[in-house]
Amino acid sequence: MDKRNALYAQSGGVTSVINATAAAVIETANKSKRINKVYAGKNGIVGILRENLIDTSLEDKAQLKKLIHTPGGAFGSCRHKLQDFDVNKREYQRLMDVFVAHNIGYFFYNGGGDSQDTTNKIAKITADLGFPVTCIGIPKTIDNDLPFTDNCPGFGSVAKYVSTSTREASLDVESMSETSTKVFILEVMGRHAGWIAASAGLAAEKKNDAPHIILFPEVAFNQKKFLNKVKLTVKTCGYCVIVVSEGAQDKDGKFLADSGSVDSFGHAQLGGVAPYIASLVSDQLGYKHHWSVSDYLQRSARHISSQVDLDQAYAVGEAAVKMALSGENAVMPIIIRKKTKQYGWEIGKAKLSEVANFEKKMPKTFITKDGFGITKSCKNYLSPLIQGEAYPPFKDGLPEIARLKKRMVKKKLKNFKV
Amino acid sequence: MDKRNALYAQSGGVTSVINATAAAVIETANKSKRINKVYAGKNGIVGILRENLIDTSLEDKAQLKKLIHTPGGAFGSCRHKLQDFDVNKREYQRLMDVFVAHNIGYFFYNGGGDSQDTTNKIAKITADLGFPVTCIGIPKTIDNDLPFTDNCPGFGSVAKYVSTSTREASLDVESMSETSTKVFILEVMGRHAGWIAASAGLAAEKKNDAPHIILFPEVAFNQKKFLNKVKLTVKTCGYCVIVVSEGAQDKDGKFLADSGSVDSFGHAQLGGVAPYIASLVSDQLGYKHHWSVSDYLQRSARHISSQVDLDQAYAVGEAAVKMALSGENAVMPIIIRKKTKQYGWEIGKAKLSEVANFEKKMPKTFITKDGFGITKSCKNYLSPLIQGEAYPPFKDGLPEIARLKKRMVKKKLKNFKV
Repeated sequence: MDKRNALYAQSGGVTSVINATAAAVIETANKSKRINKVYAGKNGIVGILRENLIDTSLEDKAQLKKLIHTPGGAFGSCRHKLQDFDVNKREYQRLMDVFVAHNIGYFFYNGGGDSQDTTNKIAKITADLGFPVTCIGIPKTIDNDLPFTDNCPGFGSVAKYVSTSTREASLDVESMSETSTKVFILEVMGRHAGWIAASAGLAAEKKNDAPHIILFPEVAFNQKKFLNKVKLTVKTCGYCVIVVSEGAQDKDGKFLADSGSVDSFGHAQLGGVAPYIASLVSDQLGYKHHWSVSDYLQRSARHISSQVDLDQAYAVGEAAVKMALSGENAVMPIIIRKKTKQYGWEIGKAKLSEVANFEKKMPKTFITKDGFGITKSCKNYLSPLIQGEAYPPFKDGLPEIARLKKRMVKKKLKNFKV
Repeated sequence: MDKRNALYAQSGGVTSVINATAAAVIETANKSKRINKVYAGKNGIVGILRENLIDTSLEDKAQLKKLIHTPGGAFGSCRHKLQDFDVNKREYQRLMDVFVAHNIGYFFYNGGGDSQDTTNKIAKITADLGFPVTCIGIPKTIDNDLPFTDNCPGFGSVAKYVSTSTREASLDVESMSETSTKVFILEVMGRHAGWIAASAGLAAEKKNDAPHIILFPEVAFNQKKFLNKVKLTVKTCGYCVIVVSEGAQDKDGKFLADSGSVDSFGHAQLGGVAPYIASLVSDQLGYKHHWSVSDYLQRSARHISSQVDLDQAYAVGEAAVKMALSGENAVMPIIIRKKTKQYGWEIGKAKLSEVANFEKKMPKTFITKDGFGITKSCKNYLSPLIQGEAYPPFKDGLPEIARLKKRMVKKKLKNFKV
């Protein structure tokens, strides 16, 4: 049998452990006698459309090993959603051309919901067009909003970063609160689901511990109720720590971050729900405050990744290749939580057709009645995901990272405009 | 000889390792037969004025040990500067009353430049008023702007956090840059000196590595030159990482953060030079960007503290007590860099009268000619300070922290309004 090549690509926002998945795909595929080379799309599917394929067999083994502790997307990612085949055949035909030209037999697409939709479409079309390619989706998203899987690789590490940072910064605010800063606001990611904001709640061990207020996208922001809670917290604890999801919104679904702030040129101020909340606290209550926007820091903080998350990120990559080799197609490995008292997990699978374009929000039972905190059952769900410190090696005081050569596979096709 | 008590207080902005200094003071004082108890001012000098003294002898030994890995100011800090004795005798007289009432023989004040000025005044006045108290300043400031000492405890850990985060986030931006984010802006602390911003420069190992642009308070912001550099960097590298000091200012000394942004109520937007730079990049160059404000996260990030910084923070606390016991007064232990090829340091001392109210800025030779980067000599200075990872112990996935009882010493004086 003709040995075919495998093609791996990263998609959408990256995580601190997505390269561990990449390492797993490469290592597992290299062990198989049925797979020839492993190529990687440079900057995701856009690179595949442009026939920009990285030949991972030309990388130093030592550097590939470092992928496990290198954040970001080592082969480049992209935000590019393929339209429906019926609407735009051009890009699908081009993918086919690339697959055929480079004898691709296995396609592994590492991304969130949108990407799984794409993977599913490609699986169907390669079969329809007579050059069947085994297409396996691999989950990844810090947003933790994919269905079927108990959690998403990438999320546990953000949760660990956010809960750790919340605990640390809270001690700082508390010590400053007598004469200075009384309110601290931390903005975290999560445009549509409050999983990341929720994870800050793990920082609290006992009553009155920070964070005192969490603002979820799932709970409509009520300014009066919020300000009352801030006031009461400062009165009771002497300080107040607020964690706000970038997706926090009012009852009409309007993001608080889009609240009409303008800069000195009269342009709308871009992003930043933390400064918005800060202004509110300052204007309405007069408290001195500090605010932080963690943005990319939270999802690239490989130095504080969770060991459980890292293990799972590796495991889904390994499982994806094994599934492909065992004849599965248009599926995605998922993480199944065992029904044991002590946390345990195993790899299962879901059909891509069912995964695609579905966002898993926080269940109502995970948010406290007042809408400002997380419940015990939420803590029970989140806590196992942040266990273990997967420290990267450090050199000269800084985390070591992989330095890839990214040698390109020779092009065989004409240029293509994406 | 009557055994007298020691009094320790924290002042100003806290650091991730100031409690290691506290632990050193308490442990070293407890070993001495000449010191009775160690008290701590609750919330710094304000607590001393209010006669709010914490009796550290009533704390669990196990919890005191945890101070070494607990960020923030465990006894509380404050921003309160004593006026000159000639202007306002009242507070000095009150301090004297508290010292006498509680038999204080040694006062250790752990803070930055302002605090050392205060310590010096107190030393002078206790002598003049006939109840001599040995007053030792202990350096602490993430701003790294105290004179005489080679560096300031607290700074090395922020430098490690900022350089690590810059390296990590840069990998993220790089992987997103083909179709999405091209510019990432990280705002760091340092209102008057660019030491913290400079430390981001350690993240770069070779040409074109991020950060590509550092904006220092020491270099007047030139918008045209800056935008040109951003454009050129995106052209060359595909993306651009900018680290901006909160103290970045224009040629007239006006902070960029105070650039006239107003919120939806027409009020001045509070803080945030990162969103200002982001708007500029977006409006003038049209690049998609992300920005982060690390704020308190950077100075409380005990999980990524530098071992060298932690060792030095402990050492200055220990040295302060030893200096007091050896008859020194109105001095501050400092860190002296040995003139060896390999980095080494030892403790020296400086007179408080010479330390007080002096801000050490970045030398010109530490900033590259174009004003956007750090030189080799700056790297040589900074690099040793971020060496070693002083990880705290983790429990249930989160860093363990000290839980103090903070039992108060019985008051003996009338109330005093601060």
